[in-house]
Amino acid sequence: MKALRYYGARDVRYEGMDDPAPQSVRDAVVKVEACSICGSDLHIYHGHGFSEDIGFCVGHEAVGEVVEVGSGVHRLKVGDKVMIPAAVGCGSCRACLAGVVNLCEFGQGSCYGLSAKLQGSQAEAVRVPTADANAVKVPDGVSMEQALMMTDALATAWYGVRNADVAPGSSVAVIGLGPIGLMAVDSAFVMGAHVVYAIDPIPERRALAEAAGAIALHPDEALDRIRQDTKGRKLDCAVEVVGSDATVDFALRLVRPRGTVSVIGVQQSRRFPFPLERAFAAGLTFRTGTCSVPEELPALFPLVQSGRLKPEKYISHRMPLSEGAEAYRLFEAREAGALKMVLVPD
Amino acid sequence: MKALRYYGARDVRYEGMDDPAPQSVRDAVVKVEACSICGSDLHIYHGHGFSEDIGFCVGHEAVGEVVEVGSGVHRLKVGDKVMIPAAVGCGSCRACLAGVVNLCEFGQGSCYGLSAKLQGSQAEAVRVPTADANAVKVPDGVSMEQALMMTDALATAWYGVRNADVAPGSSVAVIGLGPIGLMAVDSAFVMGAHVVYAIDPIPERRALAEAAGAIALHPDEALDRIRQDTKGRKLDCAVEVVGSDATVDFALRLVRPRGTVSVIGVQQSRRFPFPLERAFAAGLTFRTGTCSVPEELPALFPLVQSGRLKPEKYISHRMPLSEGAEAYRLFEAREAGALKMVLVPD
Amino acid sequence: MKALRYYGARDVRYEGMDDPAPQSVRDAVVKVEACSICGSDLHIYHGHGFSEDIGFCVGHEAVGEVVEVGSGVHRLKVGDKVMIPAAVGCGSCRACLAGVVNLCEFGQGSCYGLSAKLQGSQAEAVRVPTADANAVKVPDGVSMEQALMMTDALATAWYGVRNADVAPGSSVAVIGLGPIGLMAVDSAFVMGAHVVYAIDPIPERRALAEAAGAIALHPDEALDRIRQDTKGRKLDCAVEVVGSDATVDFALRLVRPRGTVSVIGVQQSRRFPFPLERAFAAGLTFRTGTCSVPEELPALFPLVQSGRLKPEKYISHRMPLSEGAEAYRLFEAREAGALKMVLVPD
Amino acid sequence: MKALRYYGARDVRYEGMDDPAPQSVRDAVVKVEACSICGSDLHIYHGHGFSEDIGFCVGHEAVGEVVEVGSGVHRLKVGDKVMIPAAVGCGSCRACLAGVVNLCEFGQGSCYGLSAKLQGSQAEAVRVPTADANAVKVPDGVSMEQALMMTDALATAWYGVRNADVAPGSSVAVIGLGPIGLMAVDSAFVMGAHVVYAIDPIPERRALAEAAGAIALHPDEALDRIRQDTKGRKLDCAVEVVGSDATVDFALRLVRPRGTVSVIGVQQSRRFPFPLERAFAAGLTFRTGTCSVPEELPALFPLVQSGRLKPEKYISHRMPLSEGAEAYRLFEAREAGALKMVLVPD
Repeated sequence: MKALRYYGARDVRYEGMDDPAPQSVRDAVVKVEACSICGSDLHIYHGHGFSEDIGFCVGHEAVGEVVEVGSGVHRLKVGDKVMIPAAVGCGSCRACLAGVVNLCEFGQGSCYGLSAKLQGSQAEAVRVPTADANAVKVPDGVSMEQALMMTDALATAWYGVRNADVAPGSSVAVIGLGPIGLMAVDSAFVMGAHVVYAIDPIPERRALAEAAGAIALHPDEALDRIRQDTKGRKLDCAVEVVGSDATVDFALRLVRPRGTVSVIGVQQSRRFPFPLERAFAAGLTFRTGTCSVPEELPALFPLVQSGRLKPEKYISHRMPLSEGAEAYRLFEAREAGALKMVLVPD
Repeated sequence: MKALRYYGARDVRYEGMDDPAPQSVRDAVVKVEACSICGSDLHIYHGHGFSEDIGFCVGHEAVGEVVEVGSGVHRLKVGDKVMIPAAVGCGSCRACLAGVVNLCEFGQGSCYGLSAKLQGSQAEAVRVPTADANAVKVPDGVSMEQALMMTDALATAWYGVRNADVAPGSSVAVIGLGPIGLMAVDSAFVMGAHVVYAIDPIPERRALAEAAGAIALHPDEALDRIRQDTKGRKLDCAVEVVGSDATVDFALRLVRPRGTVSVIGVQQSRRFPFPLERAFAAGLTFRTGTCSVPEELPALFPLVQSGRLKPEKYISHRMPLSEGAEAYRLFEAREAGALKMVLVPD
Repeated sequence: MKALRYYGARDVRYEGMDDPAPQSVRDAVVKVEACSICGSDLHIYHGHGFSEDIGFCVGHEAVGEVVEVGSGVHRLKVGDKVMIPAAVGCGSCRACLAGVVNLCEFGQGSCYGLSAKLQGSQAEAVRVPTADANAVKVPDGVSMEQALMMTDALATAWYGVRNADVAPGSSVAVIGLGPIGLMAVDSAFVMGAHVVYAIDPIPERRALAEAAGAIALHPDEALDRIRQDTKGRKLDCAVEVVGSDATVDFALRLVRPRGTVSVIGVQQSRRFPFPLERAFAAGLTFRTGTCSVPEELPALFPLVQSGRLKPEKYISHRMPLSEGAEAYRLFEAREAGALKMVLVPD
Repeated sequence: MKALRYYGARDVRYEGMDDPAPQSVRDAVVKVEACSICGSDLHIYHGHGFSEDIGFCVGHEAVGEVVEVGSGVHRLKVGDKVMIPAAVGCGSCRACLAGVVNLCEFGQGSCYGLSAKLQGSQAEAVRVPTADANAVKVPDGVSMEQALMMTDALATAWYGVRNADVAPGSSVAVIGLGPIGLMAVDSAFVMGAHVVYAIDPIPERRALAEAAGAIALHPDEALDRIRQDTKGRKLDCAVEVVGSDATVDFALRLVRPRGTVSVIGVQQSRRFPFPLERAFAAGLTFRTGTCSVPEELPALFPLVQSGRLKPEKYISHRMPLSEGAEAYRLFEAREAGALKMVLVPD
């Protein structure tokens, strides 16, 4: 089959590779109908990957059709339309049974497309290990593109907003307006936020947040404006979707006493200078982590089915998989309004 | 001053009566700028009052301006614009301190306009006992009419929806589409409902619910339609806003296993035939009661300020207080699209 | 094999019957090491069963060793020590995935020992359908007798107390002091109750509740005593463990405004006369249903391992399975201090 | 009157000073019956105070009898036995009304005994500003010494454990076994912890924790032992009660993925090196702050009345107020088993 393979920094190639095959009776193979590029794929694209492997297939967001199932697969059959959440779990351990697949006690490679151990899904087909746990049938009323958005981006956004203790009537900041940040804006409104401050230096992204009902601000003006609007009280909740020390620190400045900061940007800082004295005086809650997609689906499916959430509106490009390298380039450069990049096998 | 006074079934008169005066240093007097008629006022209007008194002033929803405060009032001053929540509390007992004024351990007459003990507020002025606890300054960005809607109707609607365990992604039924039911529809969406079934026999009211985004149904068709839409699973939550055995029973039929029924219609049944066997098999939660207005305001104020909730849209009539008798007549008859009736002292 | 079989009211016989065998590749067979009699087994024993079948094996509480697994069973192997929760689920539907096995959308016979469709476990061996979902490995530090207590009784007690909204500092009533009621007393203390009123007419049972730290009362004196102790305020929470209209009504009289009543006694009333007017005035929550054992285990396992819960202390009898008929007789008559009756295959 | 006054590092003197008097009609004066020394008093004692003032009266934990009330005080009268929570609030702002007195929007001096602005309560008498909000009647069944323990220490411990998301069945670490840490151990058990690891280098303090049911460990052995006991999984919750970077870092090492760390030790670090990458991978919650005493009392009063919590058992010394300087010396040196030091006006 053809797939996008990693060969080094900014070197992703559309090439042939072996067709995927089940490695156990519990695996399935899914023919990919569409896949997409995630902000965290840029870590790999920049050569700061999570393994030393070369030539592995990248990507961890995909939907498609089941074309092969092992004898130990009970909940799926050939022909089923499925979405493939980004992280895999064993389906049997305490974490998986609690729905927290991303913290599976046995790891299982954790995420597609990080190494040769668990090949990615920016390909014509992909092996899904322990498929009963790791592929989810797309329900009626959810389009394949919507399901694709839920394999990682929308679920992460939703989880990040939940983690910020957003409740009906809350005031919320979202820092960083890539696709996940924009979906976080929408999620905050669905959870009842009365106001969302959406913060990003890029005007085009702010315009999208504004269209979603947010007050969109450049980072340089955000703190003053929020102080003024709230008469110094600041906000109930802040969601950080960038993954830098500066933005985490900024989030901690935006919340009121007893407020909550939720950090979902990928964090690589080992010694973030946390303002502990101030946080102690203010009684803050600070929460960080990655989502488990299956845990979020019972709320997300009906919200997407009913049209309250429309994650597909943040798809900026639909391109053939064969043009994957160009898609990566555009996405990294944020050219042409690049937001969510969908790739379709040719 | 002039006021609406009760003289028997369907006999409410606009007449002079003594000006209100403080009875303790903790009381205040408020000049009424607007008051409104509540569905529960009809109980009195029908002569099924809560006392034997004659000639007392009716009404428990009002906003206005503070014109007199006792020396023991600390949080209000003459000239403050205030809303007067329907139920009064002592402000000092365990329930009041917990914000649950309507369950005040010392009762204090509990609600305006039920007897001569605590005169109502459909008048040119009203005494507010223990004013620090029982009058609330109208914050910037909330109009007096919006504040009026929050003295009872919106707070009750919001509480009823909260009590139904509505969460982001829930499916909800609202039974009864008077002003409180309609506000419950809006509240359910703000809390994240993905769908609201709004049920009432009156087509005009269903049209308003539809405009608010609900699927509006006649009671006769509701159960079948809900079963069909949910493939037999039924709904997560139901809110009963009528106050009859039949509608409570109906609510209990609409929810799925482990669902919740919230009953906020005024209930007078002493032996409601509860389907206990079925509720046990399904694992239902059943919750009923009246709200404490102050408890709901921290969420409601910002939602109204930001325009996410617009309770004033359910005001159908604005009439002079002197035409109060006619307003009651229209409201009871549901004539002329009567919904929320606002009365303004002449 | 030998088993206890039902032949009519008060006619349970220890007899031979066919050995159990898997009906699908996902089933397992468990050699029973111990089983027990549940209060709800008396419904069948009294001839008010849930089917017309004759000769089926009774019982739904058992522990033992896996002796056979189908090829589709992944989480169990021959030799594993397991507990078998009372209700079975498909393991794949929305309810089962959420851990609420007892509300499985496909029913699957729901509970062992009610008919010939799903033979009971008061036997030398038992078939466990979809064993990955319906048998649970007994973890280190939990004895087989403790595990047996968790297949139904302790899980039900714990769920019932949770459903009563018991929180640290709560005051709680438990009505009915059979094994589940006594375990509810213990559960309430673990959840932080500051006082538990344990109510039952039988002095021996009250003595056990007292030994567990409760204030034990005869039903005739309970209401007065509780009113007096709480200066009329009454209790935060009440748990009904009997299953009669009278005790449910009694529970509703014991709780304070905004209190919660949880009903876990098996309810067969179709028109329970619910005091709706009073419940509305007081703002009560009323919750009923049966537990899903797997849902409760993450909390219960460590509490039993650490000795904070010792459900085995309520085992009054350990008898050979061959004397099952006599065990039923003693249990029904509440003779010889009969509480939890454990039967061990000969 | 006589009082303990601050004159510099390790220089607290028992001396005469002006009798306290109301500064507004809402103030009261309380004759102190007993007061106590808090770990945070050592900050002042060490000369790292919160003001430049000299000669002010120290201390923020006291109980006594009301001897004077202003005309604007409604809930207290002369002769009432009261406890005086450590932090004062205005009683009228949004935070105070929500029960979060320590985050009062108007500050009001925040805590007794930090400066001349709000004199401390290690004295024969103390002024209580806005007494309705800032003094609490001691209820029946709570001794004055128990009430004294609740003015800060027990309330802080309880809040810290709540903030760690301790639930029935949780595993918990408490780091630091001064009086608050020991009360946190007790609190964790009341909230349903199945195991508490109590960590401190001082053997006498570990012995007290062991007597309370904890597994007491020296810091050097704690991580290995916890890893071993939990098979590498680590704990659900950790409570830090020391106030150093090292112990906060340690707490973050003790919890499992999706666990919670609660920090209640007084924190003065402005750039604590937070292990953000690890916290992100593990999905941790980190919560810090100080308690609002009134917020915790509804749960604490009944737990103390019923004997489930016995905070007075951690009183190591009862000394005359005139020996306050010696009490401070012993407490700082941790001599003679010094834990909670109670001072009684002579």
